[in-house]
Amino acid sequence: MKTVRIALCQINPTVGDFDGNVKKIVKFIENAGAYKPDIIAFPELAVTGYPPEDLLLKPQFIEDNLNALREIQKKVGDFIVILGFVDKKDDIYNAAAVIHNKKIVDVYHKIRLPNYGVFDEYRYFQAGTRYPVYEMGDVMFGVTICEDIWYPDGPAAVQALEGAEFIININASPYNMGKSNFREKMLSVRASDSSVIVAYLNTVGGQDELVFDGHSLVVDENGDVIAGAKQFEEDMIVIDLDLDAVFIKRLRDPRRRQQVISLGKGIVERIRIERKPADIEGRQSSQCYCPTTIPCCAEEEVYNALVLGTRDYILKNGFKKVCIGLSGGIDSSLVAAIAVDAVGKENVTGIFMPSPYTSKDSGEDVDELSKNLGIKVIEEPINDIFEIYLKTLKSEFGDLPPDATEENLQARIRGNILMAFSNKFGRLVLTTGNKSEMSVGYATLYGDMAGGFAVIKDVPKTLVYGICKWKNPKEGRTIIPERVLCKEPSAELKPDQRDIDTLPPYEVLDPILKAYIEEDKSFDEIVNMGCEEDCAKKVIKMVDVSEYKRRQSPPGIKITPKAFGRDRRFPITNRYKSW
Amino acid sequence: MKTVRIALCQINPTVGDFDGNVKKIVKFIENAGAYKPDIIAFPELAVTGYPPEDLLLKPQFIEDNLNALREIQKKVGDFIVILGFVDKKDDIYNAAAVIHNKKIVDVYHKIRLPNYGVFDEYRYFQAGTRYPVYEMGDVMFGVTICEDIWYPDGPAAVQALEGAEFIININASPYNMGKSNFREKMLSVRASDSSVIVAYLNTVGGQDELVFDGHSLVVDENGDVIAGAKQFEEDMIVIDLDLDAVFIKRLRDPRRRQQVISLGKGIVERIRIERKPADIEGRQSSQCYCPTTIPCCAEEEVYNALVLGTRDYILKNGFKKVCIGLSGGIDSSLVAAIAVDAVGKENVTGIFMPSPYTSKDSGEDVDELSKNLGIKVIEEPINDIFEIYLKTLKSEFGDLPPDATEENLQARIRGNILMAFSNKFGRLVLTTGNKSEMSVGYATLYGDMAGGFAVIKDVPKTLVYGICKWKNPKEGRTIIPERVLCKEPSAELKPDQRDIDTLPPYEVLDPILKAYIEEDKSFDEIVNMGCEEDCAKKVIKMVDVSEYKRRQSPPGIKITPKAFGRDRRFPITNRYKSW
Repeated sequence: MKTVRIALCQINPTVGDFDGNVKKIVKFIENAGAYKPDIIAFPELAVTGYPPEDLLLKPQFIEDNLNALREIQKKVGDFIVILGFVDKKDDIYNAAAVIHNKKIVDVYHKIRLPNYGVFDEYRYFQAGTRYPVYEMGDVMFGVTICEDIWYPDGPAAVQALEGAEFIININASPYNMGKSNFREKMLSVRASDSSVIVAYLNTVGGQDELVFDGHSLVVDENGDVIAGAKQFEEDMIVIDLDLDAVFIKRLRDPRRRQQVISLGKGIVERIRIERKPADIEGRQSSQCYCPTTIPCCAEEEVYNALVLGTRDYILKNGFKKVCIGLSGGIDSSLVAAIAVDAVGKENVTGIFMPSPYTSKDSGEDVDELSKNLGIKVIEEPINDIFEIYLKTLKSEFGDLPPDATEENLQARIRGNILMAFSNKFGRLVLTTGNKSEMSVGYATLYGDMAGGFAVIKDVPKTLVYGICKWKNPKEGRTIIPERVLCKEPSAELKPDQRDIDTLPPYEVLDPILKAYIEEDKSFDEIVNMGCEEDCAKKVIKMVDVSEYKRRQSPPGIKITPKAFGRDRRFPITNRYKSW
Repeated sequence: MKTVRIALCQINPTVGDFDGNVKKIVKFIENAGAYKPDIIAFPELAVTGYPPEDLLLKPQFIEDNLNALREIQKKVGDFIVILGFVDKKDDIYNAAAVIHNKKIVDVYHKIRLPNYGVFDEYRYFQAGTRYPVYEMGDVMFGVTICEDIWYPDGPAAVQALEGAEFIININASPYNMGKSNFREKMLSVRASDSSVIVAYLNTVGGQDELVFDGHSLVVDENGDVIAGAKQFEEDMIVIDLDLDAVFIKRLRDPRRRQQVISLGKGIVERIRIERKPADIEGRQSSQCYCPTTIPCCAEEEVYNALVLGTRDYILKNGFKKVCIGLSGGIDSSLVAAIAVDAVGKENVTGIFMPSPYTSKDSGEDVDELSKNLGIKVIEEPINDIFEIYLKTLKSEFGDLPPDATEENLQARIRGNILMAFSNKFGRLVLTTGNKSEMSVGYATLYGDMAGGFAVIKDVPKTLVYGICKWKNPKEGRTIIPERVLCKEPSAELKPDQRDIDTLPPYEVLDPILKAYIEEDKSFDEIVNMGCEEDCAKKVIKMVDVSEYKRRQSPPGIKITPKAFGRDRRFPITNRYKSW
C-alpha cells in the first residue's frame, strides 16, 4: 500500500514574537517526530503570527522573520517541514517553505491574495505565479496557502491535475459563526472535484479582533472528512494517507481526464525530494492517531471563541488580571463568566458602582453572580461624585432640564473609576457592550465604552441571551442568576428607564441590524422582511449616526460574518440616507 | 490655430450626499458654460464623494449614484462633460463618464487601483482594461483617473502614443506635506515624456482624516505648468490648449517614434464625438481665464489644510459650534486659532479647567488667547470633583503613593466636563493632542483624548511651534500669546511637572518619530542618525506600547506622508521588539 504520514501542527503563534514562535514550532517538530511522519506542516505565516499588518513594511521585521526561519531549518532532519513565513525576493511574498534535511528545497508563494473583509493582503504582498508539485519518492503533493483553496480553478486544482495526490493547504483563517460548516463543505467539494486528499491546517488563537479557530481537517478524495483537530485549542493531527485510494478514484473519474486536457497542463514545476525508505510497517489506510472533535452547538462555539479571544488578548498583551464594571445586567454577567473561564476567577475583579437609579435587584444580582463565579466585587457608589459634577456644571447649565447629558455623566464617572483601578493596579478593563448597542449607539463614549477590550462587541443581544441560557445547564449549576435572564433590560441611568423606551425590542432590532449591517440590505428590503417603516428608518438612522462612537471603541472579538472594525469600513462624514 | 477650451471644476463634494453633489455639479456646469468650453471636467467619484468606503458594498448606494449621474446627464448640452462616478456592469468600476448632448458617449474605467497607504481600492473595484481615445472633430484626447497617471507606462502614455493630444486626469488625491511639489514634478515629467498636455484635476475638501487639497494643474507638452487652481478651496480653471504646439513638439521628439513601435500600438479604442463648430475667435495659445495660485510656505500650507479639514468635519457632520479645553499651552492655543478660522469666533467656546497644579501663568495665557481670538471662555475648576474621586477611591487605594492614576483622573474629569458641554449644547469637542504625544502615548485615553475630532493629531510638536510662530506675523498681530511660544511645555498634572521629565526634548524626539513611524527605519538606523541608544530604545518602546490608545483616538487630519489611522495599520497585540 502506498501511504504517506503527515502531521498537521495547529499552533497558536503570537504576532511579532519570533523567539516564542520559533520555540513553539521546534517543540511541535520534536513532538511530531515521535510519530516518524514524512511531512510536518505549520500554519500560514506561523513564523510571524497572523496578521502582522504594517509590521510587514519594516525591512528589519522581514529580516528577523528570515532569521527565525533559519533557526527552524536547522532542526529539520530526514523529513519534510512545511512552514508559513514571509519570503523576500524581488518583493515580499506570503510563502510556505518546504524544508528537508536542513535545506530549503522550495518556497511556494501564495497566488490568491485576499483583500476583502478583514484582509488587506494586496497592501503588502506580491502574488505568486508558480505552481510547484513535489515528488517525494513515488509520492506527489502540492502546497497551497489559505485563499488559494477557495478558488475552484486555483493552484490546488492545477497541482492535482498534474499528479499531486494530496494538497497541504496552510491557513490563518479567522472564525465567524457558521464559517466552519461552510468551509468543510467547500473543502469536501474541492477534494472530490480534483480527486485529491486535502489537508487543511489552520492556525489557532486570538489576535486583536480576530480569533482563529483551528479546526484543521483532512478530507479524502471522495470529500469525506477523515480527521479533525480541536476547535479553539492547539492540537496536532497525525494521519496516514492512503494514496492507492486516490489512484483508484482517479481511474474511475472521467471528468478528470477532460480537465487535464483543458486546464493547466504543463504549467507546473516538478521538484524532486528524496524520500527515506518509509517505515510503513503497520500503516493502515487513512489511520488517524488523534481523536476528532465533536461539533458543538452555536452558543458553545461562540462562547469558546470569546474565551479564547479574551484570554489571548489579555495574556499576549502582558496582562494577567482584569476588572469589569458589573451592573447586574446580562451583558456584564456574561463578560464576567467569560473572563473567569479565560484567566481564572482569582484574576477577575468586579466593580459595582450604584447610582441613585440603581435598583435593589441589581445589587443582589451582582452579589449572586460574584458568588456563582467566585470573584471579588468592590462597591463604589457614584452618588457623591455625580452630585459634585452637577453642582459644578450648574453655573453653565442653569435650569435646563436633564437629558442624555446627565445619563452620560454617570456612565463616564463609572468609566473613570474603572480606569483608575486599571491604572493603579495594572488590571485590563473589559467592557461589556453588545453588538446591538454598538450598532445603534446605545452606549456612552468614554463611559461604559471605556476599557481595553470589548469582549462581546460583536455578539447581538439576542445571542447574549442564548449563550447565557446555554451556560447554566452546561455547567450543571447556576452561573448567570436566573433573574438576570428574565428581567427587563435597563441602563438604570434615570428613573424607571427601560431599553424599550429608546429601542425596539431586541427580537425586532437584531434581525434589522443583521440585514442592514451584515447583509447590506436596503431600506426597502428590510421593510419587505416585515419590519415597520418607521422602525426600520429609526434603526438605520441610529446605526448611521453612531459611526463616530464605534471608531473610538476598544477592539473586540469578531464572531459574525461582518464585525465592526477593520471588517466594516465606513466613513464618519457620510450624508447618505438609505431610507 | 488648433485649440480646445477646457474647464476643470475643482469641487468639494460630500460623501453620500447625492442631492447636494448633483446640485453643485450642475451649478458648476452652468458657471463654466459661460466660457463656452469644449470640455467641462469634474473630479474622481465626484458623484459619490471620495472615499465612500464600504458604502460601495451597498447595491442601493450604487443605484443612487447611477440615478444622480442620470440627473446630471440631462443638463449636458453641446459640449462634453467628464464626470467621476461608480459604474456598474458585470462588476463595479471607479469610472469617468464622457457625456455629450445628454448622452453617455463612453465610460472609462480606472486601470490602476491604489491599495496602499489610506487606499483600499482592490477591496471594492474591478480594474479597467480598455484604453479609449476620444476623437472630437480633429482633436484627440484621453481620460484617466488618479493613480493611472502615476505609472510611467500607464494608460496616459498609451493614449498619448496613439494620438491623444491632451489627457484629462481626474483625481481625489489626498494632501500631505510636500506631496504637491512631488506631484507637480511627476506630472511635468509625464507630460514631457509623452509630449502631451496633462490637465490634472483634483477634488478639494475634508473627509474624516483626509484633506483633498485641490491645486489642480495644467502642464503643457514641455512639462511647464500653464495653469493652477487654488489650494484648499473650490475653484475652476478655464484654459485654451494649443494643440499645434503639441504636434510641433512631437515632430521634434525622436524618442516618441521609437516608443510608438514598442508600446501599445493598436490597443486603444477610438471613439468619435461630434464637435460643434468651435467658436475659436479670439482664442490664443494656452490662454488661461483664471489666476494661478502663489505657492505658500509649509507652515501656511499645513495651517490651511487643518482649517479646511476641521471646517468640513464640523459642517459636513451637521455641527456648527465647537468647544475646546484650553490649558494655556501651545497645542490648545493652536487648535483654538484653527477653529476660529474654520467656523468663526462666535462658534468657538473655550473651557478652562484649572486644578491645584495649574499655574497662574496658564490662566493668564488662556485669557490673553481668548481676547486675541475674540472667543468666550468658561472656567470650571476641577478641584472639588478631583477631591471627591480621591476620597471615594481611598477605601481601595489606601496609602498607595500617587502615580499616573491621579494624573489621568484629572485629565478624565476634564474630558467628562467637556463631553457634558458637548451633550448639553450640541457642541463638537475638538481635542488638542499633537502627533508627538500621540506617538509616544503621552496623552490620557478618555481624558485629553476625549472628543470628536483631533485637529492636530498628525502635527509633530516642533511643527506646532513652527506654525504658531508663523501665525502671529501672518496676521500682523499677536494671536498665540508670546509666553505660550516660549514657556516650557508641561501637562500640569502634578507639582512642577515638565514634558522633558518623561520625554526627550521635542527637537530630539520628533526626528526619531519621523524615522520610526513615517520611514519605518530600524533601531540601528535610528542610532546611526546620531541618536543615543537608550533614548532610541525608550522612544520606540513608547510608540509600540501606545497602539491601543491610538486605536481609540478620535479621527484627525492627515498632513504627513504617514498618519496614524487607516494609513498605518498596526496590531495592538504585538510582541515584536525592533530594538
